Amino acid sequence: MNILIVYAHPEPTSLNASLRDFSVQRLQAAGHSVQVSDLYAMQWKATVDSGDNLAHEPGTPFHISPESKYAFENGLQSPDIAAEQAKLMWADAVLFQFPLWWFSMPAIMKGWFDRVYAYGFAYGVGEHSDRRWGDRYGEGKLAGKRAMLIVTTGGWEQHYGPRGINGPINDLLFPIQHGMLYYPGFDVLPPFVEYRVRAMDEARFAEVSGRLGERLDTLATATPIAFRKQNFGDYLIPSMELHPEVAPGQTGFAAHIA
Amino acid sequence: MNILIVYAHPEPTSLNASLRDFSVQRLQAAGHSVQVSDLYAMQWKATVDSGDNLAHEPGTPFHISPESKYAFENGLQSPDIAAEQAKLMWADAVLFQFPLWWFSMPAIMKGWFDRVYAYGFAYGVGEHSDRRWGDRYGEGKLAGKRAMLIVTTGGWEQHYGPRGINGPINDLLFPIQHGMLYYPGFDVLPPFVEYRVRAMDEARFAEVSGRLGERLDTLATATPIAFRKQNFGDYLIPSMELHPEVAPGQTGFAAHIA
Repeated sequence: MNILIVYAHPEPTSLNASLRDFSVQRLQAAGHSVQVSDLYAMQWKATVDSGDNLAHEPGTPFHISPESKYAFENGLQSPDIAAEQAKLMWADAVLFQFPLWWFSMPAIMKGWFDRVYAYGFAYGVGEHSDRRWGDRYGEGKLAGKRAMLIVTTGGWEQHYGPRGINGPINDLLFPIQHGMLYYPGFDVLPPFVEYRVRAMDEARFAEVSGRLGERLDTLATATPIAFRKQNFGDYLIPSMELHPEVAPGQTGFAAHIA
Repeated sequence: MNILIVYAHPEPTSLNASLRDFSVQRLQAAGHSVQVSDLYAMQWKATVDSGDNLAHEPGTPFHISPESKYAFENGLQSPDIAAEQAKLMWADAVLFQFPLWWFSMPAIMKGWFDRVYAYGFAYGVGEHSDRRWGDRYGEGKLAGKRAMLIVTTGGWEQHYGPRGINGPINDLLFPIQHGMLYYPGFDVLPPFVEYRVRAMDEARFAEVSGRLGERLDTLATATPIAFRKQNFGDYLIPSMELHPEVAPGQTGFAAHIA
């Protein structure tokens, strides 16, 4: 497979960097082609602005969605955005690796999504009418590709448990896994989460990388999270609420998983 | 009161900018002192890096938490970070205003939290032992202050409803409201969310700003979200799981609201 790793950590000697290098080696050894978008090393621009549309006329208002659409359709996106989109189209699977900062991804990776996910590429794809609300949530330009989060936390696993004070990790990651990955079409594999990370001795690193390695070995075969597809009867259109007969009476994130 | 507005939108002629200006005028007319951190206008640096610690030795590894702690304790933070912390300490209430991009805040505001929320300021505050897990979730340096989100979405309200496909808005905002605002001590007011925004005629703007104005008028008196305090018996220490007698059998975000 072709595998893209989108990676965000500022320190080249960090545990995250070691795990990234481990992943590259493991995947290459298995015969995969690997590219890494190391956002800090690339000095990725995190902020959406008018520079993202090469056709933007200086001094005029910046209208984000229409300008994103125009630039995407006409080959006038900032080259760094187009390059990341090309990597996504090349990839069969994409790993997003980051330390959990304030219960989400580092700003530099959020800015990767904000900028690379152009109108016409990740949203605004397909027919939008009162019969169909676009190709999203299970359809879209990234359909058929797989995605998986690789996340480290400083906090304890129990604190992210079903009744843990931080909230359950799968709920904390729902806006990312469902809202950012499933939305444009990815099949999303269960995340690899390593808790309570700090400087590790060799024994723990071997143990952690061993578990990560198993996940990398099964990238092509593991069962994705069973998020419900938008356009196949589970949702009413255009209200986009679950059909009354689907997960009856259930509310919240879990209702969107079959 | 002293009121800080932390604001993130790239376009000065946007609806968000009009609502921000409306808020400033409404609050000042009521006798409040207002400061605005307009992150795009300030060209806020979104990415955590070694430049955030003025004492960082070039060429040595960047250890985020210990360096954040050292810089905070010794007055050696990047001046832009220290300035935002000073505004937070000055404020009695803080409004965070942004368009919802990919089910979270724009990268530039995430980078405000990543950088301003230093070790010793927003986390790592208070005693950490097997009897007490720091001053957080209801205690901390920002305790006694109020916070409120002002959020705009392109999507419809129903899509963010209890059974809407995006997930319920309050669950999507939980990592922000609980994890970023309640964590360092803020009392968090229910969010002001305006759905399906686009270019507005005067009548709709009057209607929207009228509703926002009511929320601004009641900033000091509105009832905060009843998130459970960490250190007053609802949670076991150190597992930080809800006590079995609290919300028995309940899991997920809602269990953390009394």
